[in-house]
Amino acid sequence: MYKYKYLKREFNKSELINLNPIQRGGILTKEAREALLEFGDGYSTCDWCPPKFDRLDRIEKPPIKDFYEDLAEFLGMDVARVVTRCREAMFIAFKMLSSPGDYIVVDSLSHYSTYLAIEFAGLKVKEVPHTGYPNFQLLLEMYRDKIEEVKKETSKLPAAVLLTHVDYLYGNLNDALIVSKIAHEYNVPVILNAAYTAGIMPVNGKKLGVDVIVSSGHKSWAASAPTGILALTEDMAEKILPTATITGDWSKRSFKIKEMPLLGCTVMGAPLITLMASFPHVIRRVEKWDEELEKAQYFVKEIEKIEETRVLGVKPKKHTLIHVESIGLHKVSKKHPRKGFYLYDELKKRKIVGIQPGLSKHFKLNIYGLSLDEVRYVVNAFHDIAAIYGLKIY
Amino acid sequence: MYKYKYLKREFNKSELINLNPIQRGGILTKEAREALLEFGDGYSTCDWCPPKFDRLDRIEKPPIKDFYEDLAEFLGMDVARVVTRCREAMFIAFKMLSSPGDYIVVDSLSHYSTYLAIEFAGLKVKEVPHTGYPNFQLLLEMYRDKIEEVKKETSKLPAAVLLTHVDYLYGNLNDALIVSKIAHEYNVPVILNAAYTAGIMPVNGKKLGVDVIVSSGHKSWAASAPTGILALTEDMAEKILPTATITGDWSKRSFKIKEMPLLGCTVMGAPLITLMASFPHVIRRVEKWDEELEKAQYFVKEIEKIEETRVLGVKPKKHTLIHVESIGLHKVSKKHPRKGFYLYDELKKRKIVGIQPGLSKHFKLNIYGLSLDEVRYVVNAFHDIAAIYGLKIY
Repeated sequence: MYKYKYLKREFNKSELINLNPIQRGGILTKEAREALLEFGDGYSTCDWCPPKFDRLDRIEKPPIKDFYEDLAEFLGMDVARVVTRCREAMFIAFKMLSSPGDYIVVDSLSHYSTYLAIEFAGLKVKEVPHTGYPNFQLLLEMYRDKIEEVKKETSKLPAAVLLTHVDYLYGNLNDALIVSKIAHEYNVPVILNAAYTAGIMPVNGKKLGVDVIVSSGHKSWAASAPTGILALTEDMAEKILPTATITGDWSKRSFKIKEMPLLGCTVMGAPLITLMASFPHVIRRVEKWDEELEKAQYFVKEIEKIEETRVLGVKPKKHTLIHVESIGLHKVSKKHPRKGFYLYDELKKRKIVGIQPGLSKHFKLNIYGLSLDEVRYVVNAFHDIAAIYGLKIY
Repeated sequence: MYKYKYLKREFNKSELINLNPIQRGGILTKEAREALLEFGDGYSTCDWCPPKFDRLDRIEKPPIKDFYEDLAEFLGMDVARVVTRCREAMFIAFKMLSSPGDYIVVDSLSHYSTYLAIEFAGLKVKEVPHTGYPNFQLLLEMYRDKIEEVKKETSKLPAAVLLTHVDYLYGNLNDALIVSKIAHEYNVPVILNAAYTAGIMPVNGKKLGVDVIVSSGHKSWAASAPTGILALTEDMAEKILPTATITGDWSKRSFKIKEMPLLGCTVMGAPLITLMASFPHVIRRVEKWDEELEKAQYFVKEIEKIEETRVLGVKPKKHTLIHVESIGLHKVSKKHPRKGFYLYDELKKRKIVGIQPGLSKHFKLNIYGLSLDEVRYVVNAFHDIAAIYGLKIY
């Protein structure tokens, strides 16, 4: 059992720069770190659960009720719930908006969890294509074609369409308004997967015309895992969050207060509290998104100076998640005794981590929240490594 | 936004004794508290996700893979997964073992989340009765009758039976072996809800003959919420944890490595790590269950000395969750200006918290993990309060 003692992370040391593509937006604030210890114990949020209305979203001490309202407002939606993961939020929305066998139309850069949620809900998937290499731009107008295809094939509309606001592969930002206009012509609800956007950049559901926003607290809200966000219009809340109707056949017990698809209460402890503690910071940080984009564009310009290196996806970059393709760095790996791992080793020597060990031809990184000096340091490290191995820096 | 700053709990101060019925088994160990800070950041478990087999249960650093194996062994099962809540574990088991409209046979003291999971899975419930006041003993032999009823009514067996090992209302312990023998005569799988047992008392699925164990890390494993445990026999693992088969119709992407009903990875951070960090302590503490029961029986004997006060449920107590009925303390409330709240006030004065404010006739408490001195202190406080208000102590 010794292995479970002193569980430590290497990568959260302050002297390291961590570029892990999924971790930059989930680094806790100081406030969240303090709250974590305060609310670490199981059911720590439940000290003051209101007796006759015992639901997580009604707790006022700590101010969970207020938080849910503020969170909905912040996202330009009517109702918000914190669930256990963004993927659970998708699953709940898919399940509650559909009948078995229905279609969900999704973008073809959706995260794998989108597909799994569709399968678990007993539904079918229809994908909206992208332009492929090197931009991988989604053909958003084709949501119309895909809705029509479903209609023709099944004589029924899709249960919902889902758009990934920024995808996990290339960090391309999509204009949700285009999709919501098309879907609403057919009265099909629009789910926006804002796992990579809400919490780090301004996202307003009303302005984007979407019906449901799902997001990830541990990805983009400076919160501990697992935390998902499910934000809804009033109309969607009625459909997606009904209270329970089941009654015990012998006991006659019923549970009419409980929100059925949430299975009642959700995140009953520490991670929810980190989300709340970081919220004031998150509200401020989304306003500085332009600064983040400047750094991202600077990074792209500089990394592309390395011989045979380019950034994939739509440019100029509208997100800090960056997919680098480097034929140059890859050529080095072929002659290096450590193969592709040399890049990881060289970066690690320079106290830079988070790029997947072994990769050199295609690798993803995220510079969200790094200072300009840190971004410069990272860029210089790449230039330095490239130069050592004889690549040109233009 | 000031309200989200300095989020504090009153009830985790070391000078207080917290009797909250759902919180005693979820108090973190020192090791878990340290691990919490180390792994607080979002996706903190994912630093060393194996590239070509990217699944939480395969991560070796921290030793999640080992932990899942050790956890299964500890519970006398073949496969274990940590999911987001015990209720999610139930939902997944119900959904994967059933066809729409099937029955689940449950005990009539099941937690509300059991019923919600049944409803969300599109299933029907059939309850096994209990004896009612004052023992509320489940009639376990009636699982047979209920299976037969379902068979007669639907020409089909129930999809599964669920037994709540110890119920949340009276803390009655049920002999799972009786139920598993009956269910297995019909080849119906048995799900044991061990939210109140596994992690604080010895629970061995093989010895109990059950097919699935679900449990709650934040309730009984000294872990942060939200953490659920889903432990399975090999046979059940095949049925309940299939990998994804969905394929993108345009992209042809598939996700054959991912466990579909889990939606891929589950608790990707701090709460899982607290469960792991507390695990060595949990292994030791379940061995001391007899000492806990002695304290519980002592508490019952002493509390029942108060005029017109009794403990409901089966006696002698086999669990530390105690449901007190006190006509005596209730009579006091009728004349007290603070009504039922006087009991809360008086206990609070004595630094005892966790009994629901306002209750005096029926209230639940849990003495799990209190020292004998603390239990004595609590008992004396009750005697003291009763005496102040003129009740006899026999």
